[in-house]
Amino acid sequence: MAEQRAALTAGDGAPAARQPLREGAPRVIVAGATGFAGALAAQLLWRHPGFELVGVTGRAETGRPLEELYPRYRVPLEVEELDVSRLQGIDAAIVAYPHAAAAPAVAALREGGIRVVDLSADFRLSSLATYERWYGEHPRPQLLEEAVYGLTELHREQIAGAAIVANPGCYPTAAVLGLAPLARAGLLGDVVVDAKQGISGAGRVFDDTTHLSYAGENIVPYKVAEHRHTPEIEEQLALLGAKLPVQFQAHLVPLDQGELASCYVTPTREIAAAELAELYREAYRDEPFVEVAASPPGTREVCATNFCRIFAAADAHTGKVVVLSAIDNLWKGTSSQAVQNLNVMYSLPEEEGLL
Amino acid sequence: MAEQRAALTAGDGAPAARQPLREGAPRVIVAGATGFAGALAAQLLWRHPGFELVGVTGRAETGRPLEELYPRYRVPLEVEELDVSRLQGIDAAIVAYPHAAAAPAVAALREGGIRVVDLSADFRLSSLATYERWYGEHPRPQLLEEAVYGLTELHREQIAGAAIVANPGCYPTAAVLGLAPLARAGLLGDVVVDAKQGISGAGRVFDDTTHLSYAGENIVPYKVAEHRHTPEIEEQLALLGAKLPVQFQAHLVPLDQGELASCYVTPTREIAAAELAELYREAYRDEPFVEVAASPPGTREVCATNFCRIFAAADAHTGKVVVLSAIDNLWKGTSSQAVQNLNVMYSLPEEEGLL
Amino acid sequence: MAEQRAALTAGDGAPAARQPLREGAPRVIVAGATGFAGALAAQLLWRHPGFELVGVTGRAETGRPLEELYPRYRVPLEVEELDVSRLQGIDAAIVAYPHAAAAPAVAALREGGIRVVDLSADFRLSSLATYERWYGEHPRPQLLEEAVYGLTELHREQIAGAAIVANPGCYPTAAVLGLAPLARAGLLGDVVVDAKQGISGAGRVFDDTTHLSYAGENIVPYKVAEHRHTPEIEEQLALLGAKLPVQFQAHLVPLDQGELASCYVTPTREIAAAELAELYREAYRDEPFVEVAASPPGTREVCATNFCRIFAAADAHTGKVVVLSAIDNLWKGTSSQAVQNLNVMYSLPEEEGLL
Amino acid sequence: MAEQRAALTAGDGAPAARQPLREGAPRVIVAGATGFAGALAAQLLWRHPGFELVGVTGRAETGRPLEELYPRYRVPLEVEELDVSRLQGIDAAIVAYPHAAAAPAVAALREGGIRVVDLSADFRLSSLATYERWYGEHPRPQLLEEAVYGLTELHREQIAGAAIVANPGCYPTAAVLGLAPLARAGLLGDVVVDAKQGISGAGRVFDDTTHLSYAGENIVPYKVAEHRHTPEIEEQLALLGAKLPVQFQAHLVPLDQGELASCYVTPTREIAAAELAELYREAYRDEPFVEVAASPPGTREVCATNFCRIFAAADAHTGKVVVLSAIDNLWKGTSSQAVQNLNVMYSLPEEEGLL
Repeated sequence: MAEQRAALTAGDGAPAARQPLREGAPRVIVAGATGFAGALAAQLLWRHPGFELVGVTGRAETGRPLEELYPRYRVPLEVEELDVSRLQGIDAAIVAYPHAAAAPAVAALREGGIRVVDLSADFRLSSLATYERWYGEHPRPQLLEEAVYGLTELHREQIAGAAIVANPGCYPTAAVLGLAPLARAGLLGDVVVDAKQGISGAGRVFDDTTHLSYAGENIVPYKVAEHRHTPEIEEQLALLGAKLPVQFQAHLVPLDQGELASCYVTPTREIAAAELAELYREAYRDEPFVEVAASPPGTREVCATNFCRIFAAADAHTGKVVVLSAIDNLWKGTSSQAVQNLNVMYSLPEEEGLL
Repeated sequence: MAEQRAALTAGDGAPAARQPLREGAPRVIVAGATGFAGALAAQLLWRHPGFELVGVTGRAETGRPLEELYPRYRVPLEVEELDVSRLQGIDAAIVAYPHAAAAPAVAALREGGIRVVDLSADFRLSSLATYERWYGEHPRPQLLEEAVYGLTELHREQIAGAAIVANPGCYPTAAVLGLAPLARAGLLGDVVVDAKQGISGAGRVFDDTTHLSYAGENIVPYKVAEHRHTPEIEEQLALLGAKLPVQFQAHLVPLDQGELASCYVTPTREIAAAELAELYREAYRDEPFVEVAASPPGTREVCATNFCRIFAAADAHTGKVVVLSAIDNLWKGTSSQAVQNLNVMYSLPEEEGLL
Repeated sequence: MAEQRAALTAGDGAPAARQPLREGAPRVIVAGATGFAGALAAQLLWRHPGFELVGVTGRAETGRPLEELYPRYRVPLEVEELDVSRLQGIDAAIVAYPHAAAAPAVAALREGGIRVVDLSADFRLSSLATYERWYGEHPRPQLLEEAVYGLTELHREQIAGAAIVANPGCYPTAAVLGLAPLARAGLLGDVVVDAKQGISGAGRVFDDTTHLSYAGENIVPYKVAEHRHTPEIEEQLALLGAKLPVQFQAHLVPLDQGELASCYVTPTREIAAAELAELYREAYRDEPFVEVAASPPGTREVCATNFCRIFAAADAHTGKVVVLSAIDNLWKGTSSQAVQNLNVMYSLPEEEGLL
Repeated sequence: MAEQRAALTAGDGAPAARQPLREGAPRVIVAGATGFAGALAAQLLWRHPGFELVGVTGRAETGRPLEELYPRYRVPLEVEELDVSRLQGIDAAIVAYPHAAAAPAVAALREGGIRVVDLSADFRLSSLATYERWYGEHPRPQLLEEAVYGLTELHREQIAGAAIVANPGCYPTAAVLGLAPLARAGLLGDVVVDAKQGISGAGRVFDDTTHLSYAGENIVPYKVAEHRHTPEIEEQLALLGAKLPVQFQAHLVPLDQGELASCYVTPTREIAAAELAELYREAYRDEPFVEVAASPPGTREVCATNFCRIFAAADAHTGKVVVLSAIDNLWKGTSSQAVQNLNVMYSLPEEEGLL
């Protein structure tokens, strides 16, 4: 599985230049690298000085260099089938499979002693009952206990020692980071989350939804009262002390990468602007990737970064609190957060490879 | 002011073909035709068999044919300065000026006996106090009583006889049409409106906000807890019996025309899916331009039309009601609704010129 | 096949309002109405006062109202399978099938005495040898003689009496209209056509090419030295007296509808600006849908219209002539030109239903 | 002028993390950092381990951190006025002023002994006569001799020792890199360059051209037979032995960053596909930033990179050669090429800070 990186070239003649690799860097693979999330994870790891990306796998399009599918990512490794009998010497894997398909692959990797960051939903919900209500039968329920929810800012310590990190959904990433300070302070009385996302959020799926002639010049709400990120948000808020149903609604808007969660909170008591500001400043004072903004953030401000930018305001007229939380759905919402988690798991500087 | 329509040509040689005009059609002008809203109003009237568009005015760019500024609208009339001494023979005007500038122009037109549909905010709020809190001093408060709020579906009868019709803001159009059935039924307990709009909503304004290199690949929330459409929505809901503060939040997304108001309602009592469906079906059964949809509407479905498409769902999990209301912000949200109002004012078929 | 139009509704309750139909209007169908071209043709005919659209067919998605697939077109007819045994009473058809699939369908319709406007490439090339070099074996070569090339401006008289009209490709429409005046004047010495088109030009095809996350923020040249519209352009120019190879290159750019053919001509002799201007003015003086522009046309100027807007300039520095020809690829480039041809075939006003 | 980098923060609390700086790194400023080109140059230098960015200047918006204007670039330096009396200790500058304004600033910097990469057109043309024909009077003609044309791949050696590097225009970068192998081989008989570019190419200019509601859904040709990049392309090709007029045409298409030069060449003699391929492979074998592609390149493949990707094909049908050359207009077309030139000027690895 381990490709000779040096032998590969980008295009004709140009060497696939990259940062020098640190001695003893953990060897990693990306399983499911032909989708948007896996491909970006591969790019981030390929350029990361602290990890050696030694393989990329896919269930289709094997035999082609990944850079042929994603030229701008410039990862020259050839897409292979995942062969669990040939994983000796691999330390860790990012798995980018759809839910239900992911769990068996994760199980096989775990049997080989490989640590996994799983991008699917299979290990995000700690409650099996909740999983099965929203997703159907779980293929490997016995692994649920091993898994740690990978919203880095909330679970950093458990992630450091985890065998399986369940990388959060993109919507929960933006929403929970936006709401966590209020949840912890016992201030969440009622929550509406209205989220908007670029088309990359639909994945490398080919249908009317993603065709530019439909998605362009359009604003498309979907999955009313039935989006599977709802229980994930609710479970994380509950862990922070706020046990309540969340009204979550998703929309696709015509851009590629970018996501905004607009959160409308009825607080449990009146909260003044200054207290609110202090609450957020305090909560994220030491976080390298969460920025408390002085004005409403556009998603372009965090495009192609691992940053989450949050603005919170108290509306004196309604008594509600409005929280706007912006991320890049493919980066902090998915692949760069996976790398952030790998950094934590291997005690590397958390920002490495992400700035 | 009255141009000889036949003498004008689009481009070189091609006659500015159009529908034959009905005998005795009221003669109308558009004041402020060089902005997005006025230009579209001019186009709609130019092609309308029941109105004779005899002049378009602008505060700048006078002397140029409107079709030079808006080639795709193909209105060959030359932009003139508004000269209130030369308005004899004009029956009605659409005024597309910014707020505060609009009221004096409306007053001058009214003195000439001309009926007006005003696209600004100047006559939308019946309460002078509310106007002055949100917009500052009112230039012509004495005209407020003459004005009728021009959300056609709610105030059709008063519009028919009105001298001044205050055309609604685009956000109130989508939001109030979406919420009216619940308001009338006494079901509005708490309301959040999260609205998204294309860049045409920012108008023909030239700054970072509208530059494609900023607005493209971006989702931009703005005016948190201070958008001026808030009191307009609240006043209309109050007229329907729902007196409550509304949490309103606006966002710009990267398209040209299109607007979605996602409304999150805590009902005053439990409401079942079937009752909700019946409530909306009943409310809009006879409306030519409001469609109750069977699935969440994308804004492309109503792009370049006067239709408002609404989907309402009860969320059993949260107990809330989600209402999604889609319009074209420039059409039903502004200019085509102005023409719909003119149709009502002159007893023409309400759909004329709009299908 | 003939649906009862009046019984159908758009959405819930709103009647599918439309223009009154003229007495004795020819009855038409659109075969292949589920693709972009067929769906737009159906919409144009549905609103056309001079044709009665009595059926829409598709090879998939039968049983669904067309307006469910294309809400903004608001054509309530249900998609049916094409049943050639039930075509009595049908006068004409627009066929929107891929090449090779189209010819047999056209043949079957012809046997039923139905006049056809075919949107495919099957009948565009009068030379069978050329067809077979570019497309492979022709399914119905014996019908080639019956077919007339449907660039309305060039072949109006033959179209009027034709049984089969081969509607032009979108690129040939823009390019040939742009070059025809020079070709007729014997001025074409060498021709490069660089064409750019929106993603709707790729059709309702679902792959990387049309996915917004690939097509957005991209400029994509394709089919270098092998685009099948090349022989079509060459054959039409040859008919005008300019027998020469054309360098044709196509590009996809990130919009929905719009097409620009930028033509670079080495003239056979020097030509002054004034002569060039006169040549174009004269050529299109009486054409209702071709505009000679005074400045370079953006495609937005003709978006959602049947117009072609052309600008020609002589470059004193290089001695070349630059011709810029803008159309909407789905309208004048495909579906509205098909309706223009139907108007000509049935002696209706050429602009009817298209303004 | 030298800000204390460590003291500045991005947003609230998050430190402006970056790569460690190499000992003795040259100290640089960006003059004119509030426009698109200058801002990107500042970002690239801010993250460059081999240069210390110590100041950013602007003619407006002084006193604001650059990251407030360009949040995603995360450069915390405050915009200052350019004060030529306080430049001691500065080694080099990138100047991003409009033409005519640039030359005096360059002159002032040169007097302070500072080496300059100038992004304007002021020093790109070696012929004063040509400059004055296209741009008007030159403000500092005496500096022309000191300047070296900064297309790195063509003039690397002179750039290494230059005091003033005239960074190329974006269109000449793509076009000349695409045509250079043919020019050197004496194969250029006739040249048409049809170039397409995203809206960032229009700069931070606020008018109809850049408004999303105009630029979106549009393809806009501009400056027919009069684009100022024409003489620049011609002069560079002449230096390579191909003295001929070039037909150059520019277009804006609706994306942010990306540029494609489609070049149509009539070769001076027949050239076979294999020879052509070998010619390009050979020409760019050792170039780190030029890739000879095996298929037509979309601009997304090089978006946000310093790469130029070129595809060349011989068309047996026409005898012409088609060359497609893709860059990111803001990167290789402007700012990253400026950094590439700085790398060469200071003998750093040419790829440093650019991969």
